[in-house]
Amino acid sequence: MLYKTANPHGGDVYTKEIKIDFTTNLNPLGAPLSVTEAAKASISSIGRYPDPYCRKLIDAIAEYEGVEKDFILAGNGAAELIYSYVYALRPKKAVLTAPSFSEYERALDAAGCEKDRYLLREESGFEIGPDFADYLEKSDADLVFICDPNSPTGRLIRPEVLDAIVDICSKRKIRIFADECFLDLTGSEDRLKRHLNDMPGLFILKAFTKSYAMPGLRLGYCLCSDQELLSAMSKTGQSWNVSIPAQVAGIAAAGEKDYLKKSIDVIKEERERLIVALAACGFKVCHSDANYILFRGQAGLDELVLKDGIAIKDCSSYPGLSKGWYRTAVKLPEENDVLITALKKAANAVSFAGSNGGR
Amino acid sequence: MLYKTANPHGGDVYTKEIKIDFTTNLNPLGAPLSVTEAAKASISSIGRYPDPYCRKLIDAIAEYEGVEKDFILAGNGAAELIYSYVYALRPKKAVLTAPSFSEYERALDAAGCEKDRYLLREESGFEIGPDFADYLEKSDADLVFICDPNSPTGRLIRPEVLDAIVDICSKRKIRIFADECFLDLTGSEDRLKRHLNDMPGLFILKAFTKSYAMPGLRLGYCLCSDQELLSAMSKTGQSWNVSIPAQVAGIAAAGEKDYLKKSIDVIKEERERLIVALAACGFKVCHSDANYILFRGQAGLDELVLKDGIAIKDCSSYPGLSKGWYRTAVKLPEENDVLITALKKAANAVSFAGSNGGR
Repeated sequence: MLYKTANPHGGDVYTKEIKIDFTTNLNPLGAPLSVTEAAKASISSIGRYPDPYCRKLIDAIAEYEGVEKDFILAGNGAAELIYSYVYALRPKKAVLTAPSFSEYERALDAAGCEKDRYLLREESGFEIGPDFADYLEKSDADLVFICDPNSPTGRLIRPEVLDAIVDICSKRKIRIFADECFLDLTGSEDRLKRHLNDMPGLFILKAFTKSYAMPGLRLGYCLCSDQELLSAMSKTGQSWNVSIPAQVAGIAAAGEKDYLKKSIDVIKEERERLIVALAACGFKVCHSDANYILFRGQAGLDELVLKDGIAIKDCSSYPGLSKGWYRTAVKLPEENDVLITALKKAANAVSFAGSNGGR
Repeated sequence: MLYKTANPHGGDVYTKEIKIDFTTNLNPLGAPLSVTEAAKASISSIGRYPDPYCRKLIDAIAEYEGVEKDFILAGNGAAELIYSYVYALRPKKAVLTAPSFSEYERALDAAGCEKDRYLLREESGFEIGPDFADYLEKSDADLVFICDPNSPTGRLIRPEVLDAIVDICSKRKIRIFADECFLDLTGSEDRLKRHLNDMPGLFILKAFTKSYAMPGLRLGYCLCSDQELLSAMSKTGQSWNVSIPAQVAGIAAAGEKDYLKKSIDVIKEERERLIVALAACGFKVCHSDANYILFRGQAGLDELVLKDGIAIKDCSSYPGLSKGWYRTAVKLPEENDVLITALKKAANAVSFAGSNGGR
C-alpha cells in the first residue's frame, strides 16, 4: 500500500525507465557546483541537529531577497509551508484558480477549508482575466491562492490584473497566498514583494528547489510581514524541519544570482524553440513565460514518448483540463532535441494510425 | 526574531563556543561510514524529487524491524510524525508522563488537544509506577504518550507495568503513542512491537536519528497496524517530506545492526563509569537504562562547564523537574573523561564558594 494521495510529481523516476524527465520544472543548468559542494561537505556534520531557527540561512535569504529577516520563514520544501500556513491560519473559504498546483487543494482539504474554484478558460489561454477582481469582490472567501507564473499553464499574471487583485484584497481583507516558486526563472522583476510592508495579508511562497534545481534536498521559504502568522506557522510543526544539507545548500544558492541570469537566457531561447517545434507537431501550445509549457496533443502521447525514455506530465487530472493536455519542462538544447524527436515520432504514429484506422 | 518555541535542543552549538555537546543523545560512535557515504553520494541526485512513497526505504525498514511494509510510514525526523499523528487523529485528551520529551506537548497544543500530566516522582527515581494503569483506568483520555526509555530520565518502563498499560488501554480503547526512539541503544529486545498486529491503537515511534547519529538529515518512522491512520497521517502534510539524503542514509543504516551492537557495549560500560563519577562529584544520579543520564547538581553547573566548552542539558524547564537538574549524554570514553574533569572542577568551585560565602 502506498500512502499519500495519488500521483505526486517526481515519483515516476523511481519506478519507470526514464532517461530524461520533463515532468519536473527545474533550472535546466542543474544545481550550481557551490550548492552541491556545500551539501556534500555538510554530511560530515549530520551528527548535529540542524539549527532550529535556520539563522544563517535566513540571513542569506534576507540579503538575496532584500527583505527583513523577521519577514522570512524557511521550510522543508515550499510544499511544507503551504500546510503550515493553512494550519496556522485555519481559513474558512479559499479561492483557487484552476488548473493550478494540486498541493494547495490537498492542504486546504487537510485543514478542512472550503474551496471555491475560479476556472481559467482555454479560449483565453488559461490567463487570469480582469474579471477575477470582480469575482473576488463578490466572494465570501477570506483567502485567495495565486500562482505566478501559474503551473501547469506557464503564464504570468498581467500587471494590471495583479494590481486589481491587490486592491480588492486590501479592500475586502482577503489574504493573498502568492506562489512565486517559478518566478525567479522567468526573469521578471519583483511582482508583489514591494507590497510586503504595507500588506500583512500578503504571503509570498518561494523556493530554491526550482531556481537552483535541488528538489531532492527540500528547501522552501516564505515572505510575509505578519510576524504573528509566521510565529504561529512555526508552532504547527516540529522544531528541526530544515535539514543541515538543505540549510547549507540554500546559503550557497543565495550567492548564485549570476547563475540564475545565465539560466534565464537558456530558458528563454529554448522555450521559444520548443513552442515552435510543438506547434509543428500539430499540438495546441499555450503561451508561456516560464520554464515549462502546457500543450494539448493526442491522448496517450505520454505513453508513446515513454517508450523512448521520455517523461512528460499528464495534466488530464487537473481540474479545468482534460485528456490530451501535457506539460513539459524546458531543458537543455540537447535534451529538448531528444524530446522534439520523440514527440514528432509519436505525433506521426498517432496521425498515421488515425489515417489508416481512424473514423 | 526567532520563530519556533523556546529552547529546542541542539541549537546552541550554532551560537555558543561548544567543544563537546552532551545535550543531544546520539550513538557515541557517530554515524556508520556506510551512512555518510550513501548520503554524500546522493547529493549528485538532488535534481530529482525524493520518492514520495519512500519505497526502498520502507522495504529496508520492514526488513530491519521485521514488520509488514504497510505498517510503516517515514517522516522528516521522528518529530514530524508526532505532529502528523495528532493532526490525523485529533485526540480530545492525552495523558503524558512528566518529565518527558517536550515535543509531545507542543504537538498537542498545535492540535488543540487537552493534556493531562501524570507526574513522575523523584522519590521513585522518576519511574512509571504500577499505579499508572489505575490512573489510566480512571482517566477519560483517548490517548496516552509513553516514552520508553523515557527522556530525560533514562528509565525503561518495567515489563509488568508495560503489560498493565497494554491491558488497560486495550480494555478502555485508549490509544498508545509509544516513543521508542532511544530503545535500540538500550540493547533491550522488542517491548511493544509484538502487539502491533493485535492492537491497531498501538503506535510506535522510532528513528535512525539517535541509533545511527544522523539528526542533521532528519529521518524517523513509525510502526502501526492501523492503515487508515497511516493514510490519514500521510495526507496531513506534503508529498515529498523525506529528502533524498535522508532516504538513502536510512537504507544504509538499516544494514548496520552489528554497528548498533558495538555501540550498545560502549554505552553500557561508559554509562556505569559516568554514573559512578557523577555520584563522586556529590550529585544525585538517577538510574539509567539509556545512553543519557539525569542528575541533580548545583544550579548554574551548566554555565560553569560551558566555560570549558562542555554543554550539558539544563532540565529545569521540564514539568516535574526544577533548577539543578541536568541531563548528559553518554559519549566516547575520552569525551566522557573531559566531562568528568569539567564537572569535578565545577562541583569543587561551587562547594568552595559555598563553604566560604554560603549561609
